[in-house]
Amino acid sequence: MAGFHACNVLVTGANRGLGLELVKQFLEKSNPPERVFAACRNPEGAQELKYLASKHPNLVIILLDVTNLASIEAAVARVEENLKGSGLNLLINNAAILRLTTLESETRENMSVVYTTNVTGPLLVSQAFLPLLKKAAQQSTQKGLSCSRAAIVNMSSEAGSIKNLLIWDFGHFISYRCSKAALNMLTKCQSLCYAEQGILTITFHPGWVKTDMGSSISDQAPLTPDESVRGILNTLPMLSEKDNGAFVDWKGNHLPW
Amino acid sequence: MAGFHACNVLVTGANRGLGLELVKQFLEKSNPPERVFAACRNPEGAQELKYLASKHPNLVIILLDVTNLASIEAAVARVEENLKGSGLNLLINNAAILRLTTLESETRENMSVVYTTNVTGPLLVSQAFLPLLKKAAQQSTQKGLSCSRAAIVNMSSEAGSIKNLLIWDFGHFISYRCSKAALNMLTKCQSLCYAEQGILTITFHPGWVKTDMGSSISDQAPLTPDESVRGILNTLPMLSEKDNGAFVDWKGNHLPW
Repeated sequence: MAGFHACNVLVTGANRGLGLELVKQFLEKSNPPERVFAACRNPEGAQELKYLASKHPNLVIILLDVTNLASIEAAVARVEENLKGSGLNLLINNAAILRLTTLESETRENMSVVYTTNVTGPLLVSQAFLPLLKKAAQQSTQKGLSCSRAAIVNMSSEAGSIKNLLIWDFGHFISYRCSKAALNMLTKCQSLCYAEQGILTITFHPGWVKTDMGSSISDQAPLTPDESVRGILNTLPMLSEKDNGAFVDWKGNHLPW
Repeated sequence: MAGFHACNVLVTGANRGLGLELVKQFLEKSNPPERVFAACRNPEGAQELKYLASKHPNLVIILLDVTNLASIEAAVARVEENLKGSGLNLLINNAAILRLTTLESETRENMSVVYTTNVTGPLLVSQAFLPLLKKAAQQSTQKGLSCSRAAIVNMSSEAGSIKNLLIWDFGHFISYRCSKAALNMLTKCQSLCYAEQGILTITFHPGWVKTDMGSSISDQAPLTPDESVRGILNTLPMLSEKDNGAFVDWKGNHLPW
């Protein structure tokens, strides 16, 4: 674990919730990344990120709307400029949305919007950053697959586990659940296609966390963002080839599809 | 099996491929359904369905675009009118599309269009026909869950099994695979919500079949539509509570998620 050091990290949806906490804890590490790219839709309104940037010169706030191809391309150009010839070691596709729906109330509009952000977003962002991830893998002195060499971490949810499915009293969240099952499929496809280029791909369950999203479901979310992200940052360094394409939780356990 | 008799059956995407073969074989059964509703986007151009309708007065061709809510509502009204107070016993959500893509070439547009047809379509169609399915369950003298009482069969694909995933030489079909994993999730949610209303819900792998879709992937599809649908029609009568929410193939085997 002491050896875990992703030089250049990018987190999407970094303005709040788990994304913001990931950025904070990366910056607070005893061996922080050379650059943390905090990507969000509205950098102007991201007060906490701006405050962090005033303290940490290695934090770069990036405008990124994962549903907009032009925005993704502009973000890649901005990141590449900042990397000055280095690659991107760790891409965390964290941006996601949830709609509070039941099977009866779910709509075409919700299905579309949630899927575009939660699945198409990670697909397009990964495609666009692939050259920089490949570069990191090639430049690394490490062999095999790891989060410090080159990795894509897709933030999923146990709510996307078809096998473990429980219908909650407080809603069915069909659009969200379907999007996370699809994201798990995307991850598995990415893991098989990208491994030979030295890139590890994982789908992650961060726990049920007291964030704006987690608390919108009910007030029963058991984890604080701090606890979840500590678990995540303890787990990422342990991941290797054996975990490629797996569904891993914040404690490092593998979950069923 | 001799007891399998779904009085009123609706098949979406019935103008060709598996949908058309399902309609044919339902009509050819020794105890055919009272009514087979063959739903498709363009009844005017559905020559084979029109020919079948000229021979089988129990075949009703219905206009249905599963991506269009107004079209779905009009189809429900038309079916209800034909049912004359009976319920709908078996809804087969078969309409689906596939785009020949790789992980590199997959687009936002494909992701959206394929998801809307393959996942949102079955969601909306099931929501709209739910009152008629409930009516069939209530009117039935049978207890428990079965395809002859009231059932939703979502036509999925083993290509949507995350666990069994193999990346084929001839393409990755990310949009299709993600849609089928999401459809499997939708099915599981429907199965948990609808069971208490007497409705069985299943997600189905029909095999890799020599249809326009199956042959577009490669010419290696091993099954004819006739073989696949014979397997499906042998399997449907065997399904009961123990299979509710399961991923079943045309030979009756359960597949992993």
